[in-house]
Amino acid sequence: MNYRIVFNLIGKVLLVEAALLLLPLVTSLVYAEYMGAASFAITFAVALGLGLPLTFFLKPRQQALYAKEGMIVTALAWIMMSLVGALPFVISREIPSFIDALFEIVSGFTTTGASILNDVECLSHGILFWRSFSHWIGGMGVLVFLLAVVNRNNRSMHILRAEMPGPSVDKLVPKAKNTALFLYAIYVVMTVVLAIMLWCGDMNFFEAIVHAFGTAGTGGFGITNSSLGAYSSYSQWVITVFMLLFGINFNLYFLLVLGKFTSFFRNREFWVYVGVVIVSVGIITANIYSLYGNFATALKHSSFQVASIMSTTGYSTADFDQWPTISKGILFILMMIGGCAGSTSGGFKLTRVIILFKKIGNDLKRTLHPRTATVVKINGEKVSDETISGVTSYLAIYVLIFLAVFLILMLDPYVPADHALETNLTASASAFNNIGPGFAAIGPTCNFSFYSPVSKIVLIFAMLLGRLEIYPIILALNPTTWIKK
Amino acid sequence: MNYRIVFNLIGKVLLVEAALLLLPLVTSLVYAEYMGAASFAITFAVALGLGLPLTFFLKPRQQALYAKEGMIVTALAWIMMSLVGALPFVISREIPSFIDALFEIVSGFTTTGASILNDVECLSHGILFWRSFSHWIGGMGVLVFLLAVVNRNNRSMHILRAEMPGPSVDKLVPKAKNTALFLYAIYVVMTVVLAIMLWCGDMNFFEAIVHAFGTAGTGGFGITNSSLGAYSSYSQWVITVFMLLFGINFNLYFLLVLGKFTSFFRNREFWVYVGVVIVSVGIITANIYSLYGNFATALKHSSFQVASIMSTTGYSTADFDQWPTISKGILFILMMIGGCAGSTSGGFKLTRVIILFKKIGNDLKRTLHPRTATVVKINGEKVSDETISGVTSYLAIYVLIFLAVFLILMLDPYVPADHALETNLTASASAFNNIGPGFAAIGPTCNFSFYSPVSKIVLIFAMLLGRLEIYPIILALNPTTWIKK
Repeated sequence: MNYRIVFNLIGKVLLVEAALLLLPLVTSLVYAEYMGAASFAITFAVALGLGLPLTFFLKPRQQALYAKEGMIVTALAWIMMSLVGALPFVISREIPSFIDALFEIVSGFTTTGASILNDVECLSHGILFWRSFSHWIGGMGVLVFLLAVVNRNNRSMHILRAEMPGPSVDKLVPKAKNTALFLYAIYVVMTVVLAIMLWCGDMNFFEAIVHAFGTAGTGGFGITNSSLGAYSSYSQWVITVFMLLFGINFNLYFLLVLGKFTSFFRNREFWVYVGVVIVSVGIITANIYSLYGNFATALKHSSFQVASIMSTTGYSTADFDQWPTISKGILFILMMIGGCAGSTSGGFKLTRVIILFKKIGNDLKRTLHPRTATVVKINGEKVSDETISGVTSYLAIYVLIFLAVFLILMLDPYVPADHALETNLTASASAFNNIGPGFAAIGPTCNFSFYSPVSKIVLIFAMLLGRLEIYPIILALNPTTWIKK
Repeated sequence: MNYRIVFNLIGKVLLVEAALLLLPLVTSLVYAEYMGAASFAITFAVALGLGLPLTFFLKPRQQALYAKEGMIVTALAWIMMSLVGALPFVISREIPSFIDALFEIVSGFTTTGASILNDVECLSHGILFWRSFSHWIGGMGVLVFLLAVVNRNNRSMHILRAEMPGPSVDKLVPKAKNTALFLYAIYVVMTVVLAIMLWCGDMNFFEAIVHAFGTAGTGGFGITNSSLGAYSSYSQWVITVFMLLFGINFNLYFLLVLGKFTSFFRNREFWVYVGVVIVSVGIITANIYSLYGNFATALKHSSFQVASIMSTTGYSTADFDQWPTISKGILFILMMIGGCAGSTSGGFKLTRVIILFKKIGNDLKRTLHPRTATVVKINGEKVSDETISGVTSYLAIYVLIFLAVFLILMLDPYVPADHALETNLTASASAFNNIGPGFAAIGPTCNFSFYSPVSKIVLIFAMLLGRLEIYPIILALNPTTWIKK
């Protein structure tokens, strides 16, 4: 393995993180929060102190970066970023326990939005900003950012593939650098538009920015204990629409920009996404109508929650844990599916579900007519056997990890005994799919603070596994990766 | 499609069922239950009336039976058998509702053992016998029986494959007929040994026989409301051991009979099975020790419940729904796995889990070393790509059906609202994996009676899908199967 390029890139990621830390530092200074400012300044120094030597003394001898190194870089960069990113919480004493702080920042970077805090309203502005900003950074990925800004490497498609969610990243434009640049451009523009729209409503400048970050990254950290519940219907509807927009494959926006409307409208995943949202909202609205006694309110809450869960954001405007069984059942299924590939959302991804359905249909057809040649097609193009095999493998490892996390959580004596199965099942679904809230003891009005440190570490890994889609983390932790032959 | 051979075989299955109905008929007469006897006599006449014309007037013109027909025959035979087998419950008025009666007999034939009866102790002996006997019939399969006794068809391997659980049925001996005969011989011998051992304990002749049936088929219908809880420790331990024995691949018994001990001990699935049982029993014993205050009792209950859930039998000696979280978590995972391929147990099957693990390991190795040739091996032999693709397809369709059943159950307004998610999740797991009890409202002391008729029909299909491993039922219900080109 090319160790030099791996650690050199990690150094660069830390330098980017150092630069990004200046924003919460400024925020702290603006609000005259000197304890917070100091903690960001110290963390800035740490990130710089680690990043500079790695970047400048560990120059790679050759620039070749293969799939394996791409995955390792991505996994280690995320782990390092999180270890450093947790420091402001600890130094400022706002989250004194390091494991809790690590949980919180990993939850931020992976755009999960699950918190261990009982009361977020007592946090300082700088820290609140950093939590939400971490969603925005993690949503598109800091390595993608690095590619967009500084990269001159032709092999960096491997990094894009490792960090971007979904079965395969299309090269939008011939060079990875341009793809990355373009993705970030859309991301920034949409975030700015959202922030302005929120600022025009009942949010102040600070609130508009942190909620724009949380929505764009499909994260879900709120700054009030009732999440989005206290804001106006206008703000809630704006966020509903943008959560759905950030759950769509960003390649589609590229098609729109290029004016390729036919390709856009031929995209199967998009229409399935629209269909699932409409059907879910319809059933839930009918189901919760009697709870709110008013169609508009029921529609607002059902749309918001469906958009939030499907895009794996995790904001809430209502305590959906108290909703009737049907609605909870639908939300549970949506938790497992997640949004579209190539978006900032988490979960198993709709494209994979569609490919699985098509493969199953094909297998059945082949049983009926063994001599018929069958191919799986999507958007009019044949899906390669390799991609299909990748999707079924992914399902297998996804189910195994999900059950393993669930089982370890079941060993935790601190979980409230009543509804423990529901709590732990939705906790592993929520962490692994980067959603945030679940049901029962981790419902939208609750948090993850009661879990033991061991469970929290397991959940931290679950969030990272979910965000980076499993393989990079497993490869990085596998000892044989590191042994020279 | 060769309709004649399909319906001719279904006719034969009904004749076998008619013959089998004579046993509960005799039981009813012995206990002077004339209402029961009449109901079995009428059902006998119905089975004969349907079976005779199909068998003798619909002689197939050609004997060829392909994979597709093998699946269709199996699916339709099971559906017909169940429709007829439900009649005694309805005619005797012991289960007046036809849907309830159908649920009960499908639960019997599929060896699920989930009941809609609040009180089984008020049933007549004949009906109790029929319920348990249906487990024994369904455990090995009536088509396998037909092959063993009357078959002269060389293509019948397809039926064996469709009816026997697990990824692939080995031809034990060159002819399918002999394989079927051999499987039934082991099955009969083991059942007789078990019945004698139980009779030597605190069970009377009738009790020994029905429990031997329920254990051999890994079914789980009890004849007391406390399942096996009221019997002696001797009986409980005997049943524990036999539940585990019936969860092992029957091919292994063939190896033992042939004296091929090396092949036996090389069998990977067997050792994984032993390992999972020992580890699960160990953890649960430690976990429930304080509940029973006594090592022997804790060990007995944990062994019994682990054997019962892993082999998908579903008997219980303790209300494991009240056990601590860790134990429930382990039992939940065991519910999803099930026993070995080629046994009478249900579930996803251990072999498939092992193949999935190996495939995942292989995929990871290939990512690390893209140029290395890797093969999945089991018991020292290469697993074909086709088998691996079959297993991953099976996982995909398994997860989809499981979630679909769960979602439909969540729509049922009759499910108790508290713990509804746990109830419905374990109900679909339990029905689909042919176990019997679940947690919460369908725990070991409860039953499925509260479900709406729609949910019951869905659960009936889930049980059939689980027992026949999905494809036959889907093919039989698919309209394109029946349309001539």
